[in-house]
Amino acid sequence: MKKHNFYAGPSILNRGVIENTASAVLDFAGTGLSVLEVSHRGKEFDAVMAEAQQLFKELLDIPEGYEVLFLGGGASLQFYMIPLNLLKKKAAYINTGTWATNAIKQAGYVDKVFGTTTEVLASSEDKNFTYIPKNFTIPEDIDYFHYTSNNTIYGTEIRKDFDCKARLVCDMSSDIFSRPIDVSKYDAIYGGAQKNLAPAGVTFVVIRKDALGQVDRPLPTMLDYNTHIKKGSMFNTPPVLPIYTALQTLKWYKELGGLKVLEKRNLEKAETLYTEIDRNKLFRGTVAEEDRSIMNVCFVMKDEYKELEPEFATFAAERGMIGIKGHRSVGGFRASLYNALELEDVKALVATMQEFEKKH
Amino acid sequence: MKKHNFYAGPSILNRGVIENTASAVLDFAGTGLSVLEVSHRGKEFDAVMAEAQQLFKELLDIPEGYEVLFLGGGASLQFYMIPLNLLKKKAAYINTGTWATNAIKQAGYVDKVFGTTTEVLASSEDKNFTYIPKNFTIPEDIDYFHYTSNNTIYGTEIRKDFDCKARLVCDMSSDIFSRPIDVSKYDAIYGGAQKNLAPAGVTFVVIRKDALGQVDRPLPTMLDYNTHIKKGSMFNTPPVLPIYTALQTLKWYKELGGLKVLEKRNLEKAETLYTEIDRNKLFRGTVAEEDRSIMNVCFVMKDEYKELEPEFATFAAERGMIGIKGHRSVGGFRASLYNALELEDVKALVATMQEFEKKH
Repeated sequence: MKKHNFYAGPSILNRGVIENTASAVLDFAGTGLSVLEVSHRGKEFDAVMAEAQQLFKELLDIPEGYEVLFLGGGASLQFYMIPLNLLKKKAAYINTGTWATNAIKQAGYVDKVFGTTTEVLASSEDKNFTYIPKNFTIPEDIDYFHYTSNNTIYGTEIRKDFDCKARLVCDMSSDIFSRPIDVSKYDAIYGGAQKNLAPAGVTFVVIRKDALGQVDRPLPTMLDYNTHIKKGSMFNTPPVLPIYTALQTLKWYKELGGLKVLEKRNLEKAETLYTEIDRNKLFRGTVAEEDRSIMNVCFVMKDEYKELEPEFATFAAERGMIGIKGHRSVGGFRASLYNALELEDVKALVATMQEFEKKH
Repeated sequence: MKKHNFYAGPSILNRGVIENTASAVLDFAGTGLSVLEVSHRGKEFDAVMAEAQQLFKELLDIPEGYEVLFLGGGASLQFYMIPLNLLKKKAAYINTGTWATNAIKQAGYVDKVFGTTTEVLASSEDKNFTYIPKNFTIPEDIDYFHYTSNNTIYGTEIRKDFDCKARLVCDMSSDIFSRPIDVSKYDAIYGGAQKNLAPAGVTFVVIRKDALGQVDRPLPTMLDYNTHIKKGSMFNTPPVLPIYTALQTLKWYKELGGLKVLEKRNLEKAETLYTEIDRNKLFRGTVAEEDRSIMNVCFVMKDEYKELEPEFATFAAERGMIGIKGHRSVGGFRASLYNALELEDVKALVATMQEFEKKH
């Protein structure tokens, strides 16, 4: 039976990417050694790192003055590194979900120790993060405005680059490479790579170099972006295998035609699923329509059919649907439609929903 | 031609471990999905994490009261996390090489911001770290005594657990699992896994739980060991593939018979190579004999043959010797004899050295 991988992350990777990785695990670049056991200082991995950084820049159309870093520690460590490196006096955040809440909390640690100020402009916690706050003004006298572009758990997304005078900082863990973005508006874009790029274990950071070096607090070596910029992400041993796989994904994106093509694919997949959710008498979406994510589609059974949820979970699993259980904070179902998922996978889920509707 | 992998790290892994990993990259635990694209919350990976932690404890004979964590960020991030979590008033370090120097430097950041004291008891920097300092007294009134058990770059090793009243903290990146240790003496043992355990991308930490929670400074969430203990190393997405491979290595260690067997293998390999270095008229070791590492064997051409070094590098490469170039801080050659390397690999290197000697 064909499996349809709707996991929220770590999540589906393109099959060619997986096969290239398996092949390199057995023999990397003709070295006769596994990619798991080669020095990161060898010329073969140097080439991987260089090409991954170059393709990352090319696909996102990153202007001069920015660096692309591949680090360990996850986006969660970036929640602290961002304010530690960029927060001079005041930063502003909006709270759109669990990870945004965490990002705000970590900026609070910088505030506590170094006396800075983190302002939360708006939050949608009042309605369990089912919408993106709209009525707030981004101040001009801040070091940066931080937001989470896609809220994996709740299924909301901000699919535009904010238009404001303040510099932007964004956690794009779960929608990087899903659409073109205007990088020039950002001081930093970061995220865990385990959704649209690579297996778990590597974190990407796109950082504007001129934004650095402006705080006067002591920066521990590993928490200082300049450490990693100076050493090309090789101050210490980088996560070699995840970076190798990231490169395979980036090559595949280029072959496909880049971010405009990916955006078109993603919009089509999301529309296909949301259309069914809105049509099907059993289901309903969980978030404000205008804020629906094209990456993570959250849906539940309508109140009158609520008791059918466990049955649908089993019904869908029997048809090869994997990872559609909703996060415990939301309940119901969540189908993640990351770049590597194909339209046919979404159609298989839609067919399953229709079959289940007929049954009831 | 058979390749003999003497890389210093990332470094040789057992071939069975590599093949198991390649297989899981294609199909993980019968899920029909790659280990690269499954949720870390699924029951299959839960089992991997649990077994890896359990085998880690079993092989090292870790007593009650300790936790084993698998984190991202490398040992270099631990250099900062250790003092941030454990340094209340005063800690003592010895400086035995590049990474020890870095560890001391990061404790200095905690001193600067929180007013603690880091004392360096002794250093072998005066002789380019070619020996382990002996004449120092470990104070009793310290929070911990920190050392680096094996100095990968310089080829020295402290192959015993210090006997003192102070609690020990040790960076065992490059000799963990090479011999039995008495974990009860330590508050923390940590290291990058990319030598004796796994591919790059995961960091192990063995931590005594009662040693935590005694500093009153704010601990950013990701830098607080208790965060990771409470969530079983899954506060955020862990590096799934490196942990999977670590488990394969741990299983192999158990099959082999555990750390006493590994120590015997390692002593035999090291003795074989050092005996040849001492016998061969062309070569000499670079460090004090009593401090020689059994993991990283550093050697150079004797002064009168110094100009033959480039020729030997080529000669050895032509015979399948990989990664024997010495670190730029030492020059000459370095053969790393990690657990996965077999005696036959060492014998092949010895034969190469003898063949080269005959030639000259």
